[in-house]
Amino acid sequence: MSDTPVKIALFGPGTVGSQVARLLTEQSADLASRVGAPLEVVGVYVRDIGKDRVGLDPALLTDDADALIAKADVVVELMGGIEPAKSIILKAIAAGAGVVTANKALLAAHGPELYEAADAANVDLYFEAAVAGAIPIIRPVRESLAGDHVRRILGIVNGTTNYVLDEMTARGLDYEVAVKQAQDLGYAEADPSADVDGFDAAAKAAILASLAFHQRVPLGDVYREGISAITAADVAAATDSGHVIKLLAIAERTGEGGDGGVSVRVHPALVPLSHPLASVHGAYNAVFVEAEAAGDLMFYGQGAGGTPTASAVLGDVVSVARHIARGGRGPRESHYGDLPVLPISASSSRFQLRMTVPDRPGVLAAIAAMLAQSGVSIETVRQQAGGVGTGLATLAIATHRAPESDVTAVLDALRSSDAVTEIRSVLRIEGE
Amino acid sequence: MSDTPVKIALFGPGTVGSQVARLLTEQSADLASRVGAPLEVVGVYVRDIGKDRVGLDPALLTDDADALIAKADVVVELMGGIEPAKSIILKAIAAGAGVVTANKALLAAHGPELYEAADAANVDLYFEAAVAGAIPIIRPVRESLAGDHVRRILGIVNGTTNYVLDEMTARGLDYEVAVKQAQDLGYAEADPSADVDGFDAAAKAAILASLAFHQRVPLGDVYREGISAITAADVAAATDSGHVIKLLAIAERTGEGGDGGVSVRVHPALVPLSHPLASVHGAYNAVFVEAEAAGDLMFYGQGAGGTPTASAVLGDVVSVARHIARGGRGPRESHYGDLPVLPISASSSRFQLRMTVPDRPGVLAAIAAMLAQSGVSIETVRQQAGGVGTGLATLAIATHRAPESDVTAVLDALRSSDAVTEIRSVLRIEGE
Repeated sequence: MSDTPVKIALFGPGTVGSQVARLLTEQSADLASRVGAPLEVVGVYVRDIGKDRVGLDPALLTDDADALIAKADVVVELMGGIEPAKSIILKAIAAGAGVVTANKALLAAHGPELYEAADAANVDLYFEAAVAGAIPIIRPVRESLAGDHVRRILGIVNGTTNYVLDEMTARGLDYEVAVKQAQDLGYAEADPSADVDGFDAAAKAAILASLAFHQRVPLGDVYREGISAITAADVAAATDSGHVIKLLAIAERTGEGGDGGVSVRVHPALVPLSHPLASVHGAYNAVFVEAEAAGDLMFYGQGAGGTPTASAVLGDVVSVARHIARGGRGPRESHYGDLPVLPISASSSRFQLRMTVPDRPGVLAAIAAMLAQSGVSIETVRQQAGGVGTGLATLAIATHRAPESDVTAVLDALRSSDAVTEIRSVLRIEGE
Repeated sequence: MSDTPVKIALFGPGTVGSQVARLLTEQSADLASRVGAPLEVVGVYVRDIGKDRVGLDPALLTDDADALIAKADVVVELMGGIEPAKSIILKAIAAGAGVVTANKALLAAHGPELYEAADAANVDLYFEAAVAGAIPIIRPVRESLAGDHVRRILGIVNGTTNYVLDEMTARGLDYEVAVKQAQDLGYAEADPSADVDGFDAAAKAAILASLAFHQRVPLGDVYREGISAITAADVAAATDSGHVIKLLAIAERTGEGGDGGVSVRVHPALVPLSHPLASVHGAYNAVFVEAEAAGDLMFYGQGAGGTPTASAVLGDVVSVARHIARGGRGPRESHYGDLPVLPISASSSRFQLRMTVPDRPGVLAAIAAMLAQSGVSIETVRQQAGGVGTGLATLAIATHRAPESDVTAVLDALRSSDAVTEIRSVLRIEGE
């Protein structure tokens, strides 16, 4: 055990940051024993130094970022957003400090640039808390599966949307009612767009994909579809067919050799009830990994919240500090491949198409013919008569795996056919 | 990237070992890039060198363990059993080699001795594959939760018993039929005792508890109860009350301060259907961790099998080799606390007591009085009439949390009372 403390600088004393500061103090003996040296918080960067901050020693507060970086061994960045977070991290790296961050927006937008800067400077950059909060997922993908190949990752990585869909499923709520309830309980923001439109999940999908496949995955290449179009009828139909609807972040290795690529996308999907992801309830997160040798793995836990996220940050601080106490650093992450990130049109899925059709003979035959013509093969058809006197029926068609482009073509054909009154919903089926 | 290879010696070319050898060859480029140096298998130790071994280069085979250890940087021990595995690992440590092992029996029996030898010699000892096969659970407990406190671990760590109980639940099979089926499918040994009597799970519980609580947990202190007494009627009653029966490995921090201790036990338990462990089916494993800051986490995956276990071994080989390529080593594990491992009589649980009682007035009152007298508080009672003309009824009582010793006392009282015809089963309820 060394007597020389490892010096920690904290940037961003918000919900997570104040919990990190608390845990660093409360568990200092235990942490020192795990690091092999005491941890010392040498300063907390705040933009507005006059403001009162509960539980933080006022003597530690500073608004001089450069001076704080200069005296730190480990910089913990919990400010969020792109700037000044990015500049602070780059300065810390240039100064030879290890970095721990929970900043998913920054990593999704500029991850590879930061990873490479850290590698060039031979310092650690750890970010377990950026994806799925308290769940250790980055470390397993980076380290435990280091001798394996990841085929596919299916993640429930946004607690707000999982809560909303879970409430719609459990209680038959309409989307708007469930969102309102999530807002009242503090699970959703007043403007829920970052969550319900899939922006948050897309950032996490980009980070997971870049780690799993050692590829640069620009956030702009992540296909994104939110949950606001999901209706109570969609949820009921999913239940009828033995599925639940989940918003999934998907990173998938597709094709082989010259045709190979990665597909990275966020969209609602039907998940079979027997799949482990189907029993992830409330605001919990889970990441399901399909690896070549390890087989199926799932990591489950709280995806957000000050204390759980602080636990993940602290685990990273211990790792980075331990490397510093020994004069080393952790694994590198910079060997990037050059597989293309494929557009959504190049991916393939199973689909469930729900539509309203005229309740007369020959309609199913006409629709089946249109699917056959586009090369989309039907797995099951369920037909339900509409209300008495409407002359309409509801048709739910589950397809075999088909290319997105073929399904797009058949949807165009169906929409312009008089065999179809209305396409009610088009949902991918995943996890089979 | 260094040109000097990290030299790997493989002890035990069985199901797992041959997969490790295959993956080391097939993924050598990728592994080298992750380690920062190429990996070279310098020899494979076999006891009987004349025997044919599929897929292994005969030139690598040797029966000279000492010579092989002398030229290795990393010794991978996959022989199983206590000896000669223990001597080989201790010799490897003494020679300054890093060690990777999947040997749960050895670690459960002699873990602390081995951890300390590795620490004293300043070499790595990694064993991800020893608990829950492919599931990364050791690394998260050792590293990701390094800044947190584990309160409790509930693990489904034996695939055979989970398969048997899952089949009993899904199909209403009797225990003997389900075991026979597991044997036919290769999930259970001809002599299934190591699995069904909980020996395998107890070894894993001892390893998990020693890691989670930094305590020495002798295998002999692990309370152990198998599943062979579980009947189809127990399973049906569990289903009726919204539970499933799982064989759990439990490591629990109990009490505070001077009264503190750890409880480490393996026994069948009723788990509520809403608990994530309830949806772990077939031969899959899962470890549920309750941590102070991180909250609830679960790790799910394949607990056995050559390729999944080889994936975990390989992840460890990469970590150890990476440390060696950089001249360092991973985290130490030797700061042991001195909490006592408490006997089962000192633990407390909720219980479900199922009994046959005479179907006459006053019986329930008499039984309730006996429980009250022992201080065991009743949460729910369900009574079902027995067959017509039997004059008997079945009573299922779920208690509030109660000390084991109080429940033992009340069971003695019930057995000797004429208000009870027969105690049918006594099962703990966990996960609430």
